[in-house]
Amino acid sequence: MADQNRQWRLKTTPHGPIDDDTFTSTSEDVPEPGDGEALVAVQWLSMDPTIRGWLERDTYVPKIQEGEVVRGLGIGEVVASKSDRYAVGDLVSGTTGWQEFAIADEGDRRMQVVPAGTDPLDAVGLLGPTGLAAYFGLLRVGQPEEGDTVLVSGAAGATGSVAGQIAKLKGCTVIGTAGSDDKCARVVDHYGFDACINYKTERVSSRLRELAPDGIDVFFDNVGGDVLEAGLANLALHARIAVCGAISQYDGGTPRGPRNYMNLVVKRARMEGFLIFDHVRDYRLAMGDLTTWASEGRIRHEVDVVEGFDNVPAAFQRLFTGDKVGKNAVHLT
Amino acid sequence: MADQNRQWRLKTTPHGPIDDDTFTSTSEDVPEPGDGEALVAVQWLSMDPTIRGWLERDTYVPKIQEGEVVRGLGIGEVVASKSDRYAVGDLVSGTTGWQEFAIADEGDRRMQVVPAGTDPLDAVGLLGPTGLAAYFGLLRVGQPEEGDTVLVSGAAGATGSVAGQIAKLKGCTVIGTAGSDDKCARVVDHYGFDACINYKTERVSSRLRELAPDGIDVFFDNVGGDVLEAGLANLALHARIAVCGAISQYDGGTPRGPRNYMNLVVKRARMEGFLIFDHVRDYRLAMGDLTTWASEGRIRHEVDVVEGFDNVPAAFQRLFTGDKVGKNAVHLT
Repeated sequence: MADQNRQWRLKTTPHGPIDDDTFTSTSEDVPEPGDGEALVAVQWLSMDPTIRGWLERDTYVPKIQEGEVVRGLGIGEVVASKSDRYAVGDLVSGTTGWQEFAIADEGDRRMQVVPAGTDPLDAVGLLGPTGLAAYFGLLRVGQPEEGDTVLVSGAAGATGSVAGQIAKLKGCTVIGTAGSDDKCARVVDHYGFDACINYKTERVSSRLRELAPDGIDVFFDNVGGDVLEAGLANLALHARIAVCGAISQYDGGTPRGPRNYMNLVVKRARMEGFLIFDHVRDYRLAMGDLTTWASEGRIRHEVDVVEGFDNVPAAFQRLFTGDKVGKNAVHLT
Repeated sequence: MADQNRQWRLKTTPHGPIDDDTFTSTSEDVPEPGDGEALVAVQWLSMDPTIRGWLERDTYVPKIQEGEVVRGLGIGEVVASKSDRYAVGDLVSGTTGWQEFAIADEGDRRMQVVPAGTDPLDAVGLLGPTGLAAYFGLLRVGQPEEGDTVLVSGAAGATGSVAGQIAKLKGCTVIGTAGSDDKCARVVDHYGFDACINYKTERVSSRLRELAPDGIDVFFDNVGGDVLEAGLANLALHARIAVCGAISQYDGGTPRGPRNYMNLVVKRARMEGFLIFDHVRDYRLAMGDLTTWASEGRIRHEVDVVEGFDNVPAAFQRLFTGDKVGKNAVHLT
């Protein structure tokens, strides 16, 4: 085992796009687990857009301070343990941070043992935060009913692709948006959406009017900005917008609010934010459903793997350049 | 009875503030009621901000076309009838339009007989669209619970003052916003709010942080713009925003969306629009509650009366200049 623990730390708080000055790598001795703790060798880091918010400001969690190891989810193997909760060889999932070794504290619920037999790639992807966001956001906030028309933005992404497939399972007509013709083809052909709009080349609002003349009943929004406004402009009566993210707005300086939010009144619609943490009691239920659907071939899910510790910042940046399909993760060892 | 019916028509669709070119007055013969119809001599016109939207674009109702009599609610007395539903002498309430005489059609639910004994000023105000919006928006969308902190913008206005008083009745701490110290004093002293912020001289967001350190549970928003953003910045977990209006945005060209709407995610909160028309089956319930509360002295309500047909446009403009307290109405005869 290595005796050094390499880490990515926040160097300079970003206010625009992530650049070479945002992160810096450091190295320190591998920590020793104390009583009730275990040492985890991190194998996979989950690249999630929400981290972009944590880098800049307090959100639902405190801001990551300059000099701190970047907070982030990961999967690793217990390599030493002074805890009854973690056994050497266990796969654990949780807030490892962007580093090669992490301490799991048995009093901290953020680091959980993954059920034996789970593929690590499933643990980081479909059963990880993006899959759970798709599940709870679509079903609990969106509340789709059979026959509803559902719009999913960021449809080629880790969360959007799963949200749309769940909506199809529930008997809905599902329209996606994505940023290239290739992605749109994948959204329709591979993930089974009924249609997909390329927001870079098509006018989203007028295409929605054609594709959904009766309006959108449920809108699962990952992107914000123009696409959010296009969705708001095409709501059905009593529509539900599940606000998951605003990836188009994370990087651009002053964010923009939806100028036509008063359509919420015109359509007596609601817009609601959610976090998976509020549904922690139902994680087991969600993971069970997602595993079943995946094993039946009704949900497809991929992890786009980047290899190596050195490539963590580049992998994170790719979340915002649109150059990705499915879940992004970095394989460390 | 006059044989001429004076009318205010839309002359030029406004895209900015209402001005002298927006409306024009015309005169035509008083219409004859046909079978199933009654002739109504309009006594009161209800001045409602929502009309501003109707003048400019299709909303939940079609745009008022140039040349058309301005659509608007009014109260009048039946002066001739060929309908079993309307008797001469009945007070009726409904979409009379901005004119001295209107036809009530028994097949059209928009013109209803007011229960005998109702004060016309109550019919136009507390039991009219503004009072009903306060009732349904606060109770059905806001769902306040005892002990909640409730924020009401436009607190000195016809809707806001009633919404805040209902919230007080329900055991909430109620904070208002208004546009002058005089109005704020009235909101606290007369309507019984716990506090009121003058949005023109105080920093709403930092004042809210002081007044409601645990955040806002229910936000009844009449104004949009900066005040909406200040409310969004101070939400409690699982807060509910009832979107009633955006009066700060009606007149200003390109409207602005709330830049910090992603706080809906941070606080797992929802923002929901409503219209009273969706609650038509419960109008009687609402009117009963409002009448009871008013008669017990637990809700105070005033109508700010402007006299005379010629002053209709000026009375309407006052809705947007902030120079008013309570419900605005024009007394025609």
